[in-house]
Amino acid sequence: MSLYNDMINLYPMCRSITGKGIEDTLKYIQKRIPINITYTPTGTEAFDWKVPKEWNIKGAWIKNSKGEKIVDLKDHYLHVLNYSIPVNKKISLEELKTHLYTLDNFPDWIPYRTSYYQENWGFCMKHNDFLKLEDEEYEVFIDSTLEDGNVCYGDLLIKGESEKEILISSYCCHPQQCNDSLSGTVVALHLAEYLLKQQNYYSYRFVFIPETIGAIVYVSKNLNIMKKNIIGGYTLTCLGDEGEFTYLKTRKENQMIDNITLHLLEESGLTYKVRDFYTCGSDERQYNYPGVDLNIGSLMKTKYGEFDEYHTSADNLTFVTQTGLEDSYNFYLKCIELIENNHIYMNTKICEPQLGKYGLYQMIGSSNVGMNGDTIRCLLYFLDGSHDLIDVQNKCKNINTNTIIEIINILLDKNLIKKKI
Amino acid sequence: MSLYNDMINLYPMCRSITGKGIEDTLKYIQKRIPINITYTPTGTEAFDWKVPKEWNIKGAWIKNSKGEKIVDLKDHYLHVLNYSIPVNKKISLEELKTHLYTLDNFPDWIPYRTSYYQENWGFCMKHNDFLKLEDEEYEVFIDSTLEDGNVCYGDLLIKGESEKEILISSYCCHPQQCNDSLSGTVVALHLAEYLLKQQNYYSYRFVFIPETIGAIVYVSKNLNIMKKNIIGGYTLTCLGDEGEFTYLKTRKENQMIDNITLHLLEESGLTYKVRDFYTCGSDERQYNYPGVDLNIGSLMKTKYGEFDEYHTSADNLTFVTQTGLEDSYNFYLKCIELIENNHIYMNTKICEPQLGKYGLYQMIGSSNVGMNGDTIRCLLYFLDGSHDLIDVQNKCKNINTNTIIEIINILLDKNLIKKKI
Amino acid sequence: MSLYNDMINLYPMCRSITGKGIEDTLKYIQKRIPINITYTPTGTEAFDWKVPKEWNIKGAWIKNSKGEKIVDLKDHYLHVLNYSIPVNKKISLEELKTHLYTLDNFPDWIPYRTSYYQENWGFCMKHNDFLKLEDEEYEVFIDSTLEDGNVCYGDLLIKGESEKEILISSYCCHPQQCNDSLSGTVVALHLAEYLLKQQNYYSYRFVFIPETIGAIVYVSKNLNIMKKNIIGGYTLTCLGDEGEFTYLKTRKENQMIDNITLHLLEESGLTYKVRDFYTCGSDERQYNYPGVDLNIGSLMKTKYGEFDEYHTSADNLTFVTQTGLEDSYNFYLKCIELIENNHIYMNTKICEPQLGKYGLYQMIGSSNVGMNGDTIRCLLYFLDGSHDLIDVQNKCKNINTNTIIEIINILLDKNLIKKKI
Repeated sequence: MSLYNDMINLYPMCRSITGKGIEDTLKYIQKRIPINITYTPTGTEAFDWKVPKEWNIKGAWIKNSKGEKIVDLKDHYLHVLNYSIPVNKKISLEELKTHLYTLDNFPDWIPYRTSYYQENWGFCMKHNDFLKLEDEEYEVFIDSTLEDGNVCYGDLLIKGESEKEILISSYCCHPQQCNDSLSGTVVALHLAEYLLKQQNYYSYRFVFIPETIGAIVYVSKNLNIMKKNIIGGYTLTCLGDEGEFTYLKTRKENQMIDNITLHLLEESGLTYKVRDFYTCGSDERQYNYPGVDLNIGSLMKTKYGEFDEYHTSADNLTFVTQTGLEDSYNFYLKCIELIENNHIYMNTKICEPQLGKYGLYQMIGSSNVGMNGDTIRCLLYFLDGSHDLIDVQNKCKNINTNTIIEIINILLDKNLIKKKI
Repeated sequence: MSLYNDMINLYPMCRSITGKGIEDTLKYIQKRIPINITYTPTGTEAFDWKVPKEWNIKGAWIKNSKGEKIVDLKDHYLHVLNYSIPVNKKISLEELKTHLYTLDNFPDWIPYRTSYYQENWGFCMKHNDFLKLEDEEYEVFIDSTLEDGNVCYGDLLIKGESEKEILISSYCCHPQQCNDSLSGTVVALHLAEYLLKQQNYYSYRFVFIPETIGAIVYVSKNLNIMKKNIIGGYTLTCLGDEGEFTYLKTRKENQMIDNITLHLLEESGLTYKVRDFYTCGSDERQYNYPGVDLNIGSLMKTKYGEFDEYHTSADNLTFVTQTGLEDSYNFYLKCIELIENNHIYMNTKICEPQLGKYGLYQMIGSSNVGMNGDTIRCLLYFLDGSHDLIDVQNKCKNINTNTIIEIINILLDKNLIKKKI
Repeated sequence: MSLYNDMINLYPMCRSITGKGIEDTLKYIQKRIPINITYTPTGTEAFDWKVPKEWNIKGAWIKNSKGEKIVDLKDHYLHVLNYSIPVNKKISLEELKTHLYTLDNFPDWIPYRTSYYQENWGFCMKHNDFLKLEDEEYEVFIDSTLEDGNVCYGDLLIKGESEKEILISSYCCHPQQCNDSLSGTVVALHLAEYLLKQQNYYSYRFVFIPETIGAIVYVSKNLNIMKKNIIGGYTLTCLGDEGEFTYLKTRKENQMIDNITLHLLEESGLTYKVRDFYTCGSDERQYNYPGVDLNIGSLMKTKYGEFDEYHTSADNLTFVTQTGLEDSYNFYLKCIELIENNHIYMNTKICEPQLGKYGLYQMIGSSNVGMNGDTIRCLLYFLDGSHDLIDVQNKCKNINTNTIIEIINILLDKNLIKKKI
């Protein structure tokens, strides 16, 4: 199934950080890849936090004095303030206004608002509709429940040759938001499908969670194993638009995941943006927190908060495209390929090998062998047990990642180099 | 008393590296802050040096053949070569000229010259007056003494919570020089008065000495305790003019005192100059000498040697101003505030705290919390036991020093962070 | 004897990596400096390599159908493919062409080609002569031998005060090539003559070898002592043209030899080029190989492969000049002088010495001693046991290498500093 078709399927579910919407989303994923779904009850402590009550909603509307529904959850899930408590009463326009959210700079878009940890109710609507409201009595109705229940998340560990893990985390708690949240979920799903079919060197831990509380609960239950095994990874989100790539660095910077991603972005010839960690806003906050410290970056298209459609009804199936999603998916595949190969190698010979003996001279010969620094010899000089592939590329200008991975595998095959343990 | 008024009071004393002038200066200081005054006899060995004889002077003049005083110590203390031996004789113009010092490029200024370690006598005068000298017999008279005595200095240790010390050193040996020497003494005096009234984290060692020999004697007597406790500090001089700030780096550079001072200069938005240690010229020479090595910088206004008035009679009460002195004093207060607060802190929580529980959410909330990297969360990410406040500021762009110090104290109060020991 | 005269004498020998030509070259050198000549038999294993058969040649020519010699080894040694096996037969133009090498972009130059490790025969000729070849029968004759014999090289260890060695290596295997190969040999010979007459701090190991195989055999026999003692050095080649200097960095970069050479190049005010190690092509390949790792750079004039004449008959006695050779020789002398002096020194005094006591005040005095950072004091601040001379120069702007070496020797003489052991 195409990335975009998955998005079409997942878009209509009414998600929140708890409740049926996210559970349905996880079950959709589970039909494709064997994730475990874990339920954690309301009130469970997780570090400084407690799992909140579970929220579900069946309907919500505002009627005017003529009994016409002027706002209805059926039209768009953003219409209700996420986590609204139930309400059913008649109120004046004046009172209603204290529960309405609009965007005056984008008057035809509905904003996305939440109130997870402070009990409240409200409606979000187009500013243009808001301006039409007359001074009359309104009936507001929210058929929600906020009760003891569970927060749920899904995870999957794809075991590789090494116990060391790469974390791929996405959040799937936003209702009818395509780029923010869902695009990351869809790309993660496809990456997992791909890796399940491969023999991998590293193990890959996929995590599908509600943002923030999900990450905190997940980390609280898995902290030891994560700190022991995870060497880096990514938070996946904002991957479906057709803007430039943006890389959000890990908290400590210059970590493996930063080097890999920035190296490939640079090599790609694309223009791209880089953001420092202090601008973080998603689950990389928890994964990089000083006590957790897993070196998690985030390669996005346009970063959350840097596109107008962010947290509005305009972050929809038009804003994201199959092309945008594919670009992101393919770039993550490149990152994974380099992560899988970016080891430190060392020569098995003390001095330069006689490449002709191994059938490698022809590959490199030219009438000017010496001064051009032919490729294989050049690599061998720097495969000295102290440089990884990126370092070697930086030492041997003009060798690209594909070529170096290809040559490394030939040299391993000829026993001219070995992986440094 | 204002900084400038102290300068007015101290200006008229006839100082040298020994003698009554510097003793009077120290006694003036002692009336305000409880410094100890230490006397070290002539001939005492201090490292490679010996305390010289004590020099005092009552009068000095040159009379022309008509018996008119054409140069008189009463007019300006710079008129005599500092450390001149006694003389009383009639000489020709030709011979006289070998004992005269003038500035042909500033013909109305009297130069400041010394001869501490080579016995000599001489007069300094305006070049314009020098040009008027006629070829006649002159009578020269210097009523000085150069005898066994003492070199004296004052010091004061203001104890703080920590035994670790900040050194504040100024030299007070120059006669009628305002910016060079006296401005540093006056600012140091006021800083000591300020710190005596505060509860301080660090201890502060104030030293008032004759330049070079004073520093050498002081260090020779206090080397062990200084090396044990002093973590940095400043030589104070050239603080009274209204030029730009100049920071002279410590010998080793990138030390705490360099980081603090340059950070605040950069943040101030002022234009400022930076000088490498090889251009040093005052007591930072001794304090930073490889065997002493105390990481002492110097924040000045216009650096010694970089203003025309330096070592002339034009370095006077007009050249320095209350505004210039206050700017310097206030900037040193800022430096001290940051030194006092620039510790390494660490989170008490493993994962992000739920700021709302601590009443801190309101402070930071916005509809775009995530992507703006709000201030408190941003700080918390980097308070990881490996960054001091300046490091954290560099990681979280746009948080200024005042704000960060304020937040740190709130977070300490809420037990969300603790000082790394 | 002048550098250029040595080149004139050595130019006519018909060299290869084995055989009489290189042996004669080593004997020429041995008459001037006491090198040991070592013979290593064909078939000897050296790391991944085996010593090849020894090649000698008496004559070689091509005759056309009229019996005229159209190519003759007597005219130029490049005419024969180096390491050609014997041949003596009549062949068609078509077949002949498969054994001919020319340069169509330089039609009057003969190319230099070799086939050391793949048995073959061939002729190199001017492209213009090649174009004149008619479609007739040709007689080809190569009177060579390729038999068990030896590879030979020469070396000389000039012992200094320290066991630590500087390696000076040149290759002398190219026939009738002046800049590539021979210029390095000649400069090395003169440097050895110079150093034999001096008292040196370091020991100097001079090596005269056939390129690649010579280095591999030499290293295989001397690996332990070389790794124990050699702290850096140079491969000498391409030193006779009048182009700009080019410095090829060591594999690890920022090693002593890189710092010395680049510092002096920068100080010289000359324009120069720098090349990264991945462009290496001569024996620095072996000396820097990860298992050998001796930190060998190469200061050249125009780098091999970067001048048109490279590996052609135009790399001749016209292309190199006495001026070019002298420039190179003199620059290497400067490098050696700095290597010999570039130690880490430390003060013998804890605090600033009283320079007047040592007669050093006069040298430095000025009315503005303080702010100009006079030279001796400036040096003393940084002679702290952690900076070598280059570091000190970088700290004290405007002190050049000659001055610093002069002052260091005065300070050593006065016991104001000592070498750090």
